[in-house]
Amino acid sequence: MAKERLPSRSDNFSDWYNKLVLRAELADYAPVRGCMVIRPYGWALWENIQAALNQRFKATGHENAAFPLFIPSNFMEREREHIEGFSPELAVVTIGGGEELEEPLIVRPTSETIIGHMYAKWIKSYRDLPVLINLWNSVVRWELRTKLFLRTTEFYWQEGHTAHATEEEAKAETRQMLDVYEDFAENEAAVPVVKGRKSEREKFAGAKQSFSIEAMMGDTRALQAATSHNLGDNFARAFEIRYLDRENTLQYCWTTSWGLSTRFIGAIIMVHGDDQGLIMPPKLAPYQVVIVPIFKNPDERSVVMEAIDTIQSKLFDFRVKLDDRDELTPGFKFNEWELRGVPVRIEVGPKDVAKGTVILARRDLPGKEGKKIVKQNGLENVVAELLDEIHASIYKRAKSFQEANMHSPKDYDEFIKAVEHGWANTWWCGDQACEAEIKDETKATTRCIPLDQNGEKGICIHCGQPATERVIFARAY
Amino acid sequence: MAKERLPSRSDNFSDWYNKLVLRAELADYAPVRGCMVIRPYGWALWENIQAALNQRFKATGHENAAFPLFIPSNFMEREREHIEGFSPELAVVTIGGGEELEEPLIVRPTSETIIGHMYAKWIKSYRDLPVLINLWNSVVRWELRTKLFLRTTEFYWQEGHTAHATEEEAKAETRQMLDVYEDFAENEAAVPVVKGRKSEREKFAGAKQSFSIEAMMGDTRALQAATSHNLGDNFARAFEIRYLDRENTLQYCWTTSWGLSTRFIGAIIMVHGDDQGLIMPPKLAPYQVVIVPIFKNPDERSVVMEAIDTIQSKLFDFRVKLDDRDELTPGFKFNEWELRGVPVRIEVGPKDVAKGTVILARRDLPGKEGKKIVKQNGLENVVAELLDEIHASIYKRAKSFQEANMHSPKDYDEFIKAVEHGWANTWWCGDQACEAEIKDETKATTRCIPLDQNGEKGICIHCGQPATERVIFARAY
Repeated sequence: MAKERLPSRSDNFSDWYNKLVLRAELADYAPVRGCMVIRPYGWALWENIQAALNQRFKATGHENAAFPLFIPSNFMEREREHIEGFSPELAVVTIGGGEELEEPLIVRPTSETIIGHMYAKWIKSYRDLPVLINLWNSVVRWELRTKLFLRTTEFYWQEGHTAHATEEEAKAETRQMLDVYEDFAENEAAVPVVKGRKSEREKFAGAKQSFSIEAMMGDTRALQAATSHNLGDNFARAFEIRYLDRENTLQYCWTTSWGLSTRFIGAIIMVHGDDQGLIMPPKLAPYQVVIVPIFKNPDERSVVMEAIDTIQSKLFDFRVKLDDRDELTPGFKFNEWELRGVPVRIEVGPKDVAKGTVILARRDLPGKEGKKIVKQNGLENVVAELLDEIHASIYKRAKSFQEANMHSPKDYDEFIKAVEHGWANTWWCGDQACEAEIKDETKATTRCIPLDQNGEKGICIHCGQPATERVIFARAY
Repeated sequence: MAKERLPSRSDNFSDWYNKLVLRAELADYAPVRGCMVIRPYGWALWENIQAALNQRFKATGHENAAFPLFIPSNFMEREREHIEGFSPELAVVTIGGGEELEEPLIVRPTSETIIGHMYAKWIKSYRDLPVLINLWNSVVRWELRTKLFLRTTEFYWQEGHTAHATEEEAKAETRQMLDVYEDFAENEAAVPVVKGRKSEREKFAGAKQSFSIEAMMGDTRALQAATSHNLGDNFARAFEIRYLDRENTLQYCWTTSWGLSTRFIGAIIMVHGDDQGLIMPPKLAPYQVVIVPIFKNPDERSVVMEAIDTIQSKLFDFRVKLDDRDELTPGFKFNEWELRGVPVRIEVGPKDVAKGTVILARRDLPGKEGKKIVKQNGLENVVAELLDEIHASIYKRAKSFQEANMHSPKDYDEFIKAVEHGWANTWWCGDQACEAEIKDETKATTRCIPLDQNGEKGICIHCGQPATERVIFARAY
């Protein structure tokens, strides 16, 4: 690890990303085309993401459960838009237990259909509603070109599935979960996002309305970081999810679904990383603090290690890694943990021990600027404050970058330039043909229609027709 | 729920089990043959099992990661015993992205082969060892006859996979993880187990030696509750997992694997449950305490609910469910939470509020015997002690049952009777043909060869040949 220099982020963003994921040991290519292995360091990040989301899902009344990997192929066909959207991406099991299956099984690309079947079985009365369930699992969508975390045949995610008595409740749920994702992205991952509605063309196959949070990566491309779908009564009708209301009348339910995947790890890498490697957001970092002992001989070693014992006991509230590998130099370790993005490094040498101090180094401010000498006494408070400061600082940096690259083009020529290296926030007519032309001409797609519209009207940046909403256009991952 | 009476456990154990799993809403049958849906209450139990195991895995130096769902079919074929053991059970993907695949993909029945491939890539030197990784995932083994949690085509588990420099280390790891499982089963789930080695016939396909913990269910049948395998250098040779030792010589690694699955939920149900339903072991129970308010009118309601607010704030260290559903009677709620096995019930009525007391009811002691009136003041300590007491009590009950049904038959006639309604701990010659005959004649299989042998010798209970080890025989799930 860390033997070769990482490619420069500005020279070749894509190469920088690919090599960084491998060298930081976040993930690796699996021997099956399109699949990835998530290594312990990457999985620890995902587990912290899971914990932060689980806390929010629980606070909003949701429970986790597990639904099967396989879906009967006739289920997929019951919702027309759903099967049209997913059929090119399916993996199909045709042999089970040595025999050809009468009905092939789809490896789930998403679980709306099997959820629909079970909810129809479980929901009888208004008393059973709402049903608020979340699944943590992996799903399969066939991909030919793989990019670790961003585009893989199998990926990990959570998918929330809820059923409600009224359309209003389902709408409110859809928006609530979008807010949950925004809160998670900004306050846990330090990733600024824009919340908005997807265009008809970009919405989920089978949804009435889709919403997303969109984040700007370090190369200005957009990444859809999470989605929340109001499914209307589409799946309720396809699967007969009905309930008896208080007047004893049979009614269709209103359902939603919402998801965030391991793509989000890609966003963390591409929003915060720099030429030295990853910068882990402090609240999600697998290790928040790495301690590197510095010594020249066994006597110094034992003095230093004894002091580190005491230091570690002060820091039990944090996720701390002690790098006590004897065969490696401190300089090698510094580089390695910089590459892997640990927010705070603590260096302890014999002089520090003598003075009752340690050296603290911030990952987000390289060199002398980010280093300071602090007392061991009260270190836990200094570290807590420093982690908060790093969170605020990397959020601010990402937000400034997003603002600096968000353009409001005056005409289509400016638009073309804007979306080459940034996002365009602009009037659009809402027509799908116009949207397709813009994509053909510029590679930019509608990312989302921001929720905070000011009620003004304008003229479509491309076709000149009247427009009632401003839209974010960008090239996207 | 709980409208009909549950079948009696002694009349029809199997029917009691099946109905209980459904009525307690632990799991349900999926529309795909052989698959299950684990409902929120069952999944919460599994999440508590995961947390208890993760804590132990971490303490023994293991890290979690994620490996792909799909395995190239040629991988399975590289270890001869492995493919022979698993080939009748495989689910095979032959179509991906609308096209027939050149090489079919196996949906993983277990991950030794793909682990082998990746470890061979990652491990170069003795410095890279040991590799200690655990996966939480689901695996697929084709089943025709389904029993929820016990036998399903897809099931959930953890699979640990480690690689070591020496055979001794791999042996020690295999035994360490067996101890971890025993500790978990007895101290978290209150399930007494017997640790032992599997016979050649019963060992894992591809292992050098397999070990298991075996638990006695309420009908005296055995359930293999977890396994730990010493894989020797079998997979290292099949996948070329090698390292350069300190003398710069290329050596094969020594690997292990070990797993515990959602079958364990079946064990919890069948060891502790009674005619009223589940009895959840306190340390793993989704809810440790349920609070049922008792009132006759809105005035009483507000007095009671206010007191419950205070009570809940005292109990924040526990997993507490407040059942405040207004449309249901306390009696209905008592039955439902008994069925679902919540260890402690707290009843609060207006008289209790006036006296500053509550009524505590233990799930494991039905009726008056398990009820007592206690002061609200200091309730948290009483509940903590009571949960410990319940754990000890249900463990003791299960252990007594196991001992009462563990027989040491004098001859084969006694053996036949012993394994009809119990376990036989007896001398066995170790011959596979003899083992197969015993199975044909009695349906009993070797469960394990207990680790604590006293060095004596005897005569095989079946064939009369010399025997050096005592073995547990039983009919098994």
